[in-house]
Amino acid sequence: MASPAELAAMRRAIELSLNGASTTPPNPDVGCVILDATGATVGEGWHEHAGGPHAEVNALVEAGERARGGTAVVTLEPCDHTGRTGPCTQALIAAGVARVVVAVADPNPVAAGGAATLRAGGVDVEVGVLSDEAATANARWLTPFRTHRPFVVWKFAATLDGRSAAADGTSRWITGAEARADVHRLRAAVDTVIVGSGTVRADDPQLTARLDGEAADVGGASSRAGGRVVDQPLRVVVDSAGTTPATARVRDGRAETWIATADEVGATPDGRVDLARLLDRLYARGRRYVLLEGGPTLAGAFWRAGLIDRVVGYVAPALLGAGPAALADAGVNTIDAAIRLDVADVRMVGPDLRITATPQVNRKA
Amino acid sequence: MASPAELAAMRRAIELSLNGASTTPPNPDVGCVILDATGATVGEGWHEHAGGPHAEVNALVEAGERARGGTAVVTLEPCDHTGRTGPCTQALIAAGVARVVVAVADPNPVAAGGAATLRAGGVDVEVGVLSDEAATANARWLTPFRTHRPFVVWKFAATLDGRSAAADGTSRWITGAEARADVHRLRAAVDTVIVGSGTVRADDPQLTARLDGEAADVGGASSRAGGRVVDQPLRVVVDSAGTTPATARVRDGRAETWIATADEVGATPDGRVDLARLLDRLYARGRRYVLLEGGPTLAGAFWRAGLIDRVVGYVAPALLGAGPAALADAGVNTIDAAIRLDVADVRMVGPDLRITATPQVNRKA
Ligand SMILES: NC(=O)c1ccc[n+]([C@@H]2O[C@H](COP(=O)([O-])OP(=O)(O)OC[C@H]3O[C@@H](n4cnc5c(N)ncnc54)[C@H](OP(=O)(O)O)[C@@H]3O)[C@@H](O)[C@H]2O)c1
Ligand SMILES: NC(=O)c1ccc[n+]([C@@H]2O[C@H](COP(=O)([O-])OP(=O)(O)OC[C@H]3O[C@@H](n4cnc5c(N)ncnc54)[C@H](OP(=O)(O)O)[C@@H]3O)[C@@H](O)[C@H]2O)c1
Repeated sequence: MASPAELAAMRRAIELSLNGASTTPPNPDVGCVILDATGATVGEGWHEHAGGPHAEVNALVEAGERARGGTAVVTLEPCDHTGRTGPCTQALIAAGVARVVVAVADPNPVAAGGAATLRAGGVDVEVGVLSDEAATANARWLTPFRTHRPFVVWKFAATLDGRSAAADGTSRWITGAEARADVHRLRAAVDTVIVGSGTVRADDPQLTARLDGEAADVGGASSRAGGRVVDQPLRVVVDSAGTTPATARVRDGRAETWIATADEVGATPDGRVDLARLLDRLYARGRRYVLLEGGPTLAGAFWRAGLIDRVVGYVAPALLGAGPAALADAGVNTIDAAIRLDVADVRMVGPDLRITATPQVNRKA
Repeated sequence: MASPAELAAMRRAIELSLNGASTTPPNPDVGCVILDATGATVGEGWHEHAGGPHAEVNALVEAGERARGGTAVVTLEPCDHTGRTGPCTQALIAAGVARVVVAVADPNPVAAGGAATLRAGGVDVEVGVLSDEAATANARWLTPFRTHRPFVVWKFAATLDGRSAAADGTSRWITGAEARADVHRLRAAVDTVIVGSGTVRADDPQLTARLDGEAADVGGASSRAGGRVVDQPLRVVVDSAGTTPATARVRDGRAETWIATADEVGATPDGRVDLARLLDRLYARGRRYVLLEGGPTLAGAFWRAGLIDRVVGYVAPALLGAGPAALADAGVNTIDAAIRLDVADVRMVGPDLRITATPQVNRKA
């Protein structure tokens, strides 16, 4: 049984884990709190970026000698393998930690086994403390182990009255510079960006992550911008008949691009790209984290297929009263069939609102 | 020049003034902080409900003898007339206050003159401290003195994708019980509720304030519900040709009702009710605070006429992908002409979001 101090430490560790949300991928979001033998917090850490030290190591460094005889409270089972960093299990044993409290067991077959190794090393281990909360915080990484498809975030930008463009089709700029910069951070975090052929036809977007706001003057698939090297996400155009012109900006060579056609992926009865199979293909290519950037038709099709795990809506405090909606036919005809979400986070991003929400059926994802 | 302690006290007084937002009308929202001779806070008060003691009196009661030689910091010029309570000027003089710091001069000819009376009584008076902030907080009451029409709040309820009903027309319930209760508090605060003939035809709403959520079993124009007597707002149906049937629930006699026709009010070139003249009529009838409850067509017409002062949007974390929008033709064709708002407040009301915003052109209202 976790003590009240351990429960409080786990809540804090979950909070810490979220600090890395846009820099940790493709690694999990993990937070760790070290308590000394009296239950006082002596170290905190989170996994800050892929390739960097794990949360446990960061927290142990802060704790130093005070970790000896203490407890490590960590949101994910400590890893037992030597990847880009050494195994956390050995670091915890070496630091003399007496007990490890874990929220979620590691579903990753490569890294798992940490609890057993710790126990073999004489450490008391408890797994499953606040596991629901911790799993929600780390859903982006955990979900694909269960679903065998990438985690899909649908992003949209709209006015308060739900329009994504004005009556004459103009949409630059509905949201402000801060929201657009936030989208670039999101793109830099995912490994794949998807749009429909309609959006490519209408907007000819480049779909690269540009952390300095606008310009990123690089070739190849990674760019140094805003002081950070970005692995550019794969750009996917869902284009049933493969009509994306050779001159489209998504074909500019600045990042990998896949024009996903119905022939290559598989077709729905009405001849369009089969979206579940599209995600299967992406999973098979090692893709785990997708940003679906629209437009409304493709987003509706993803909803109908039940393939969306999270919504990030940028809502501008503006009204249009006319113009296309942010979401088209999602297969809902009556109010009782509405797609219901739980709001996970609301904040101002410059003058705009950013609402993060999760579909209720996928809540435990 | 106001001292730093007085500026801080004024910020606090503005904050306090908002506590009464739904119970003060038709009176102004006022807050007051009393500082003793050393600048320490010794009393706080706000105008809690119409007919009750004014903010200054509430703050003086808390301060007691410590007000003597001190400073009263108040968001609106203290009243100089005997209404339902005695004049605040006399209370301040009697308490021995040496200085009064005021944000906004009282535009109300009946109550004005407070600063002059205080000065005549030997009190040092400074007017205009943080007047913009205080005026924004009290815009609902101040605006009609300038515009000579009621303050208009447009309320809407929609999904995250901006739909106010599903494709089949069903809309009960888009938002949850808490948001609906919040709308009833808003109705209880205003003196007038307006809807279009389309909403009456479609929904046959009752439009009374029911603070216990649903039932209000009363006759006449006031009801005791949720422990508080509510003066029911005037119900206005904007109905060009006067087609609202005698059996409509707005005609149930539980509150005053006005079927406002084009013949009675005046017509636009296309034969509809002239909305500016409608508001003139309401102002002439003593109405100062209007809740515009829709629907989308009438709300669009109010926006086109520039007659909306505040937006309160209840946004349900739900998606429909089809169905009528919350706002129809607002006279905007292109993105640069979008109606831009400033977000004043965002909060969760049960599972729903409530967004309060102000049109940028009317910002100083
Ligand atoms: N506000 C925002 O966040 C946002 C984001 C993106 C775009 N937009 C706007 O959206 C507009 C474009 O809208 P849109 O709806 O035409 O574009 P879209 O959703 O990007 O593309 C729709 C097209 O995708 C193709 N597609 C392939 N497989 C599909 C499947 N299984 N289900 C559905 N579609 C499939 C279809 O064309 P084929 O079958 O011919 O390939 C379909 O017409 C643009 O004006 C753009 O500015 C807004
Ligand atoms: N989600 C929400 O917050 C909300 C709130 C209210 C209603 N609704 C929904 O809205 C739907 C009704 O929509 P609606 O747009 O038909 O109703 P509406 O906006 O309530 O009424 C529109 C009607 O008002 C009359 N009108 C009179 N003078 C006008 C003027 N100057 N400008 C514009 N209209 C004027 C017009 O009919 P006449 O000229 O014939 O009188 C017009 O057709 C219902 O389904 C209801 O459920 C939603």
